[in-house]
Amino acid sequence: MSAFRARPPAIPTTLVDDAVTRIIRWDFEPGADTGVHTHGLGYVVVPMTDCHFLIEEGDSAREAFVAQGAAYRREAGATHNVVNAGSEPMSFIEIEYKQAL
Amino acid sequence: MSAFRARPPAIPTTLVDDAVTRIIRWDFEPGADTGVHTHGLGYVVVPMTDCHFLIEEGDSAREAFVAQGAAYRREAGATHNVVNAGSEPMSFIEIEYKQAL
Repeated sequence: MSAFRARPPAIPTTLVDDAVTRIIRWDFEPGADTGVHTHGLGYVVVPMTDCHFLIEEGDSAREAFVAQGAAYRREAGATHNVVNAGSEPMSFIEIEYKQAL
Repeated sequence: MSAFRARPPAIPTTLVDDAVTRIIRWDFEPGADTGVHTHGLGYVVVPMTDCHFLIEEGDSAREAFVAQGAAYRREAGATHNVVNAGSEPMSFIEIEYKQAL
């Protein structure tokens, strides 16, 4: 497999990274992706825009729509690539908790 | 002191409330407030709009502006009232972690 990526990268901006939490804003132009990553911590996603996700996981892919503000929680362990499958810029804020304080 | 409240109440909407986290969206019309409350858990705030806060704490009050998306974390223990001091509707999403998972 080649390391060539046809998609533009999503842009991460770290808002907080301390002993308790890491908070990252992700901004995607249409077609951008995060690259494959594994979640070592559980996380909450707060969509700042409507999000038309394409989630690539192993050999499978699925689309998901999450409305602006429809926050959700996921447990640690997922390995996936997250793509903006929409025609507009897409942003969400990801909150990981290192400890509950 | 009277229990009369001249301000309209901010409207809470619970998005998630499970073993790990509680996520509440708060919507304020101009001048609305949460009422005085104490944070029993640490929390993260994700402003969904620009937020013109008036924070009333004991006998003091201070204003604070937080831009849309400028997420921040606070530790448990604060007792305060949160008021929309702006002229536009204001919304944020509050994330409390019960345990880090």
